[in-house]
Amino acid sequence: MSSLDRSHDPARSSWVVSARAHADFPIQNLPFASLKQEGLRGGLAVAIGDDVLDLSMAIAAGWGHGLGEPVRTALAATQLNALASRPADEWREVRLALSDALSDPAWADRLRPALKPARSVTFQLPFHIHDYTDFYASLHHATNVGAMFRPDNPLLPNYKWVPIGYHGRSSSIVVSDVPVRRPQGQVKAPDADAPTFGASRSLDYELELGLFLGGRNALGEPVTAARASSRIFGFCLLNDWSARDVQSWEYQPLGPFLAKNFATTISPWVVTTDALAPFHVAPPPRPSGDPLPLPYLQVPDDWTLAIELEVLLATAAMRGRGDAPARVSQVDFATAMYWTPSQLVTHHGSNGCNLSPGDLFGTGTISGPTPDSRGCLLERTRRGSEPWVLPDGETRRFLEDGDRVIMRAHARHAGAVSIGFGDCTGVVLAAS
Amino acid sequence: MSSLDRSHDPARSSWVVSARAHADFPIQNLPFASLKQEGLRGGLAVAIGDDVLDLSMAIAAGWGHGLGEPVRTALAATQLNALASRPADEWREVRLALSDALSDPAWADRLRPALKPARSVTFQLPFHIHDYTDFYASLHHATNVGAMFRPDNPLLPNYKWVPIGYHGRSSSIVVSDVPVRRPQGQVKAPDADAPTFGASRSLDYELELGLFLGGRNALGEPVTAARASSRIFGFCLLNDWSARDVQSWEYQPLGPFLAKNFATTISPWVVTTDALAPFHVAPPPRPSGDPLPLPYLQVPDDWTLAIELEVLLATAAMRGRGDAPARVSQVDFATAMYWTPSQLVTHHGSNGCNLSPGDLFGTGTISGPTPDSRGCLLERTRRGSEPWVLPDGETRRFLEDGDRVIMRAHARHAGAVSIGFGDCTGVVLAAS
Repeated sequence: MSSLDRSHDPARSSWVVSARAHADFPIQNLPFASLKQEGLRGGLAVAIGDDVLDLSMAIAAGWGHGLGEPVRTALAATQLNALASRPADEWREVRLALSDALSDPAWADRLRPALKPARSVTFQLPFHIHDYTDFYASLHHATNVGAMFRPDNPLLPNYKWVPIGYHGRSSSIVVSDVPVRRPQGQVKAPDADAPTFGASRSLDYELELGLFLGGRNALGEPVTAARASSRIFGFCLLNDWSARDVQSWEYQPLGPFLAKNFATTISPWVVTTDALAPFHVAPPPRPSGDPLPLPYLQVPDDWTLAIELEVLLATAAMRGRGDAPARVSQVDFATAMYWTPSQLVTHHGSNGCNLSPGDLFGTGTISGPTPDSRGCLLERTRRGSEPWVLPDGETRRFLEDGDRVIMRAHARHAGAVSIGFGDCTGVVLAAS
Repeated sequence: MSSLDRSHDPARSSWVVSARAHADFPIQNLPFASLKQEGLRGGLAVAIGDDVLDLSMAIAAGWGHGLGEPVRTALAATQLNALASRPADEWREVRLALSDALSDPAWADRLRPALKPARSVTFQLPFHIHDYTDFYASLHHATNVGAMFRPDNPLLPNYKWVPIGYHGRSSSIVVSDVPVRRPQGQVKAPDADAPTFGASRSLDYELELGLFLGGRNALGEPVTAARASSRIFGFCLLNDWSARDVQSWEYQPLGPFLAKNFATTISPWVVTTDALAPFHVAPPPRPSGDPLPLPYLQVPDDWTLAIELEVLLATAAMRGRGDAPARVSQVDFATAMYWTPSQLVTHHGSNGCNLSPGDLFGTGTISGPTPDSRGCLLERTRRGSEPWVLPDGETRRFLEDGDRVIMRAHARHAGAVSIGFGDCTGVVLAAS
């Protein structure tokens, strides 16, 4: 999966001038999204610099003849499920054909009409997401949160053996920029006799990566560790909005439910596994004394990703003044995670659960060891006890109405051209 | 929702002779299913006695002219999502039109060609199920299971306030009669130093009712208690297969995952909320000293259902001899449940979670107060410590390969013709 080809060549550059030295979308990236089009069913696009290339228009302009009819049909679809249903080597052929055309000036005149400024388009979900699973794969996050919810028992005995996950709600996944309404819910203060129902007072974000799956395994046919990597089509940013007061009262014994299923935001762009090949790094060694993974979770040639993520916040006051968003935290993916992407896929499929194209996995909140690398406010402010002070003097324990949360991520590695994920944002609306 | 009309008249009978005094499918029932047809996309059908009425063929034969074009289009679909997207009064019009035609001998010649023996057809899922949620709404079950998983703390403090639920896996829901493969998983004996991976040794069933939803609420628009009942399109039987050894090791802190997502079986027939109107009963009073539900969960004119459910088992040896299945347990739905169907819907939608046509809710295991009314083997055999003895002398702690589990349910109430749900069955295959 990690073999490099000319699409990864750091010397390659695009005739789309804005793509040169673009922070997120140089020609070495080429992530996919789905455009929403007024009165039309929408269609797939690829990011190149400040523009997006409409794939249906590109095909109509003659691009993609070498790809074969099934792939061209998949690229003319509204969302990515059909492409992700094709064999993984066809995903790479599409990427290579895009890279070749967007770097070859001979294609410029034909493809320029299929380019649109990214600022002029709106996005919809890149996949029809049938099933959504959220994991809990950052040891620092699990330890920090565990200490707050279970002071006497922060890290449960299964954590270092089982890649803990749970099923989430698909219907409430929205694409970046869709406002998120503060939920109402049932909450109970520790010293109260009875719970009450009302607007959550501890709304939070969770910084995660999302994995989109490709390919299929039939129900009852386990996914093996050797096959897991080939099942990951690509990655996005994911904000697992959480109402902490609802969560702490409802989550036992069956896990989070209404505290999280009111909204999950993902970035519009799917950065392909192939585009991330130059950013593969070996998983960090497990802390001394930790057990080896059981054999079924030992992934041959396993990898994780050299990705740096950050969360920024822009309050209503800041936005009113036109201030730039303030960074809340920044974290390194590879060292924050206890389980690798392929281990999450292997574990989920180990019982024969049928994983399908467009299934979405969240990694769980990505938190590092230091306060400024914690991926949610619950951890960043220690459950509100240490409010975070913004540059303008405002403070935050949890999110307030009008706050805009912005997540960003960039893959960076020696010898490779850095690529980014685009923004994953959402503004908090007052409760209904 | 509970108003009765001529379709509920106990004196009404069908020209389909097998429907008269039929235990499950008299003309007072008329449940929907989706037929699988070789080489075709399948289609909707209604049960009448020992036959099924193919709705596309019935429409082609002239039935349904009064229903309007959108409803006829919905009835010509493969699954029920389109019909459940229509207003609830149109669901009732369809039922009434079916009842009228199937009870009027003048229709017999025209509709008889659209009848097929139920034994000759195969079923597929009645809905495209986008999101599946499982609740935990039987107090006896929660208490019994809690005592086994948390002896010191069987019923958590939130239970009598929060209708506890969690998200399940949609992709692995299968229709009755699809064999279920015993899953592999990670398990750890309490006295073991480390977990191991292998075939589950404590495979179990869970007896539940499923609720299929109709109608929509936009994301961020809560479902109110007053509207909840009108969002329930119908009911089915549901077997929430569970690997207890996997569950006890993995389920903390985020709930069941691989222990349940390898398979969930539902009955092919959707018994409509309207057909169940004669079986509405008042919810039983809460035990003395229990709190009232919070105001948002107080449903006007709330109801539950007079339904008796049973689980039967046929081992491979019994089936080899042609023995009838043996009954493991029998339970009354209304008195077993702490939360009503409308309370489950209200709670799920109270935070603005968008509920869609075809969403499936499981009630959670339905267990009564006595040993022979417990809805899973975990409870029935007290985690295997009191094996259940079959009539032929075989014993069961948990399910063995080759066992066939059969669930049945019948609604019975004074003055009404009893109706049934058909069988929900599955046989256990050896692990791969």
